[in-house]
Amino acid sequence: MELLKQKILLEGTVLNEKVLKVDSFLNHQLDPVLTMQIGAEFARRFEDCTVDKILTIESSGIAVALATAVKLNVPLVFARKKRSLLMSEEAYTTEVYSYTKQETNHITVLKKFLPAGEKVLIIDDFLASGAAASGLAVLARQAGCEITGIGIVIEKSFQGGAAKLRQAGYRVESLVRIGSLKDGKVTFL
Amino acid sequence: MELLKQKILLEGTVLNEKVLKVDSFLNHQLDPVLTMQIGAEFARRFEDCTVDKILTIESSGIAVALATAVKLNVPLVFARKKRSLLMSEEAYTTEVYSYTKQETNHITVLKKFLPAGEKVLIIDDFLASGAAASGLAVLARQAGCEITGIGIVIEKSFQGGAAKLRQAGYRVESLVRIGSLKDGKVTFL
Repeated sequence: MELLKQKILLEGTVLNEKVLKVDSFLNHQLDPVLTMQIGAEFARRFEDCTVDKILTIESSGIAVALATAVKLNVPLVFARKKRSLLMSEEAYTTEVYSYTKQETNHITVLKKFLPAGEKVLIIDDFLASGAAASGLAVLARQAGCEITGIGIVIEKSFQGGAAKLRQAGYRVESLVRIGSLKDGKVTFL
Repeated sequence: MELLKQKILLEGTVLNEKVLKVDSFLNHQLDPVLTMQIGAEFARRFEDCTVDKILTIESSGIAVALATAVKLNVPLVFARKKRSLLMSEEAYTTEVYSYTKQETNHITVLKKFLPAGEKVLIIDDFLASGAAASGLAVLARQAGCEITGIGIVIEKSFQGGAAKLRQAGYRVESLVRIGSLKDGKVTFL
């Protein structure tokens, strides 16, 4: 997605060889026009598939997942990283380690929102080691859902998560694939 | 907002006299059509104002804030409840207690995303005691921003937060106002 590449080159900051900061448009401040275009692009890439529901994880996945849900006209569910007092019902849960937060979360979706047999499209902002996307796939499989595919805004291909998910048979559609962040520079694949 | 009232009566669950659960369309599963209509309604209510930026808080505020940002064509910023490794820059921060999570968070926005003088519209899903909205207002005031108003999807008027904010001089626009959750029943104002 050319527009996204330009935005990354213009506004992204390479913090180190592993971390690209895009907080001006993707995960702290959001550009609504770009966000809706990202949703439209995911919808286009998966237009040959049946999608009953979008599955994402709080917080940075929500905006791009909503933009996709609007285009595909299907509901979205976001996994919670922390159970609230209101989530007393039966839930699917699994552990996900966050590198940027340096913590392990039990991510959770209430069972009633993932009926067996539904075709689920997983959407997230970043794919690095693949922990979050794999965790969401675990929840969907626990539920007996079919995973249509995984849509990622920015894939850091050099961290191996995308390759692992593709080897496991998932269709991973990344809008931008980054081959390296060496020497403070973003190199796209 | 009549549509939202109908949705609450149809799908909401009164857990006790203080808590209304609307996780099927507002804060766990999201209905994309309704979400965009909520954004359009906020845009309509504040159409007489200048808005430079939407300010909300993760996670449940993000979707409705994005829908509003799309309609008003302005960026949105969501306050983080937890600082990540990537938020090393200077930030505005304040304490907010969450009743449903039973924890105090230091909510944070990077200074660069709240320039002094900007006109900020605060958006959130619920207003009960007003802790979250007040916290966001504190951040905006720390930044020297002007607060255009506060847009709330569901105001639980009987918990006093909305009255407190209105007394403090803020324009609070709530799409639905709930007067009571007594006897397992939602009573609108």
